[in-house]
Amino acid sequence: MNERAVFAEIFKLGKVSRPELAQATGLSKPTISMALADLERARLVRPIGLRTGNAGRAALLYEIRPQAGWVLAVDVGREFVRLALADLVGDIAARRDEHRKGGETPGELVAWLAGLARELVDEAGVDLADITLTVFGTPGIHDKETCSLQLAPNLPGWGRPGAIELLAGVAGEAPYLVENDVDLAAVGEGAYGLGQGMAHFALVWIGTGIGMGIVIDGKLYRGYQGAAGEISYMPVGEGDPLVNRGRGMLESVASADGVVALATRLGMRGVTSAKDVFDAARAGDDVARQVVAAEADHIAHALAGVIAVLDPEMVVLGGGIGAQAGDLLIGPVADGLRDLVALRVPMIRASTLGTEAVLLGAMAVGLTKARDLVFERAVAQAPPG
Amino acid sequence: MNERAVFAEIFKLGKVSRPELAQATGLSKPTISMALADLERARLVRPIGLRTGNAGRAALLYEIRPQAGWVLAVDVGREFVRLALADLVGDIAARRDEHRKGGETPGELVAWLAGLARELVDEAGVDLADITLTVFGTPGIHDKETCSLQLAPNLPGWGRPGAIELLAGVAGEAPYLVENDVDLAAVGEGAYGLGQGMAHFALVWIGTGIGMGIVIDGKLYRGYQGAAGEISYMPVGEGDPLVNRGRGMLESVASADGVVALATRLGMRGVTSAKDVFDAARAGDDVARQVVAAEADHIAHALAGVIAVLDPEMVVLGGGIGAQAGDLLIGPVADGLRDLVALRVPMIRASTLGTEAVLLGAMAVGLTKARDLVFERAVAQAPPG
Repeated sequence: MNERAVFAEIFKLGKVSRPELAQATGLSKPTISMALADLERARLVRPIGLRTGNAGRAALLYEIRPQAGWVLAVDVGREFVRLALADLVGDIAARRDEHRKGGETPGELVAWLAGLARELVDEAGVDLADITLTVFGTPGIHDKETCSLQLAPNLPGWGRPGAIELLAGVAGEAPYLVENDVDLAAVGEGAYGLGQGMAHFALVWIGTGIGMGIVIDGKLYRGYQGAAGEISYMPVGEGDPLVNRGRGMLESVASADGVVALATRLGMRGVTSAKDVFDAARAGDDVARQVVAAEADHIAHALAGVIAVLDPEMVVLGGGIGAQAGDLLIGPVADGLRDLVALRVPMIRASTLGTEAVLLGAMAVGLTKARDLVFERAVAQAPPG
Repeated sequence: MNERAVFAEIFKLGKVSRPELAQATGLSKPTISMALADLERARLVRPIGLRTGNAGRAALLYEIRPQAGWVLAVDVGREFVRLALADLVGDIAARRDEHRKGGETPGELVAWLAGLARELVDEAGVDLADITLTVFGTPGIHDKETCSLQLAPNLPGWGRPGAIELLAGVAGEAPYLVENDVDLAAVGEGAYGLGQGMAHFALVWIGTGIGMGIVIDGKLYRGYQGAAGEISYMPVGEGDPLVNRGRGMLESVASADGVVALATRLGMRGVTSAKDVFDAARAGDDVARQVVAAEADHIAHALAGVIAVLDPEMVVLGGGIGAQAGDLLIGPVADGLRDLVALRVPMIRASTLGTEAVLLGAMAVGLTKARDLVFERAVAQAPPG
């Protein structure tokens, strides 16, 4: 188990010497040397030369061997699919962003993703068999009992029992994980964004859909049925829950469609996307500003409910509306909250990860899991002794 | 540290033999015998005779020495104060329930509680100095920075910086903890009520005030400012947040006062408490039934928000209204939720702990903490070796 501790430290520290590893792990230098020899033999770490410039003898440095594992991250979004293939230290070797035509059958979608995965491994100069793990981010709730996706109207056919298992066909024999896309965006925010080092925060996603990822004690909180953060179902706004079954009250008024519908109802012409409305508001259009004010009011009421329950340190707004209209929304939302919350209003910020958030979260989850997998495989294959 | 492990196991198992302890801890029998001898010398455990009826040699049984520690639990409620003094195994030696006159200054309240504490130790035949720990449950949020209570309008004067420190005067030199009363009720529900063994649940308290205690992964979740679960501030109901500053939108319509106000507005005469309204509804009064339906609707909307965020396995209703009008409310609330939530409605249950919930939670917190304190004191006093 010393090997595992040393391996984990090298992951954390990057390029590192034996004395540094001894200090970080509390293990003796001979033990470190033995563990490093084992890890090198298993091709998990490699020496990369001497560190110069220090007093005394130059120290030999070690790092994770990047090619010891590969992670494929796949964001199956409502409008796009995004894929990234990275080595074990997270360097991305190949990327794809492709527009979905929408309405694909599960079989069509899997065949398409499998083709893209093959392009990525070719581009990176590796084989499908080199992929350690694939992580999929999708809308909806992954129901582990029936192996299907619930509450994902943009992925027709995936609600059928067993549908999730089709994803095994995307990338060879590699094991795979399926996570809710907004939950992954919250993980991404914690690993690479505004949530770094923060114990309790929430990522509220507002775009074509609405959702929330919750981080508690630095870990993703999923709830009992995996449905924590499904705030599209918050009873906020004038949406009729029986009419909007499958969307939720908040989502029917505050998502991109809701913004377009209100703008049209108030007389704006030629509006085809929420972005049109926000652009018009920035250009000073009065009706567009009214729509923005209504949107901020919906969001403030939803966040008041979130804050009353969770009392987070920070709320990050993400998604097409939350992140990209942050300049218009953050101020009015925070103002609205001052009249609605019990104590101080938490920090309200717009995500800076943009359209990468889900993919980065999938990569963060994948790299952590892949590190364990490659270690365990190396142990299983090592000769006894 | 073997002593600590053995001590913890005896707490968990009650009356227990050496072989049972060896099995539970994984320690060898000689190690168990040495640890038991140390614990006996420190007067933390005691032998209590032989277990008969087993095959083979009768085993000597050990148990925690009950008098090794004492916990004072104090529920400073809106209408009552309740106190219990229990020994280290949780057996309650003395109890008091006293009606508050209300509006007491902090000094008056502390002097009153100190007098009651003295009565309790006298009754139990111990000294104030024997109290290991006092746990106070109070309304509002304990602001650790300013050592004051926020959002506790029924405890005037406790919002002043440093006010909490006055509680040191209640029970001699014993250390003390202050927790939100509804959070303690949730702990009580997990330790002795419907939440036993459950990872994620919420206790929603509806009485003269409204609040929620959240248990995540079996532990109380407090949030960043200690304000998690302050659902009196959920934006639900027609309450005007600016008019009801300090109460919150949900609380102003759904608390006991809100129930009485609606009943009066709808023409019921001589209603002085929410209980009057629920009694009338049980007797078939149409207006009272209308009020109950409105109350159930408010609660369903609040729970829809809670469920959207937390996805708990169970929601327990507690407090004067939640627990005691459960027969009238649980059905309509669950029905209302079916139209409001994304997936399955979690279990909705009425607490069976009644008015004891906060006190039991305080006791559960106190016993766990006291176990650690008596052990650490015994270690500190033990001769080196």
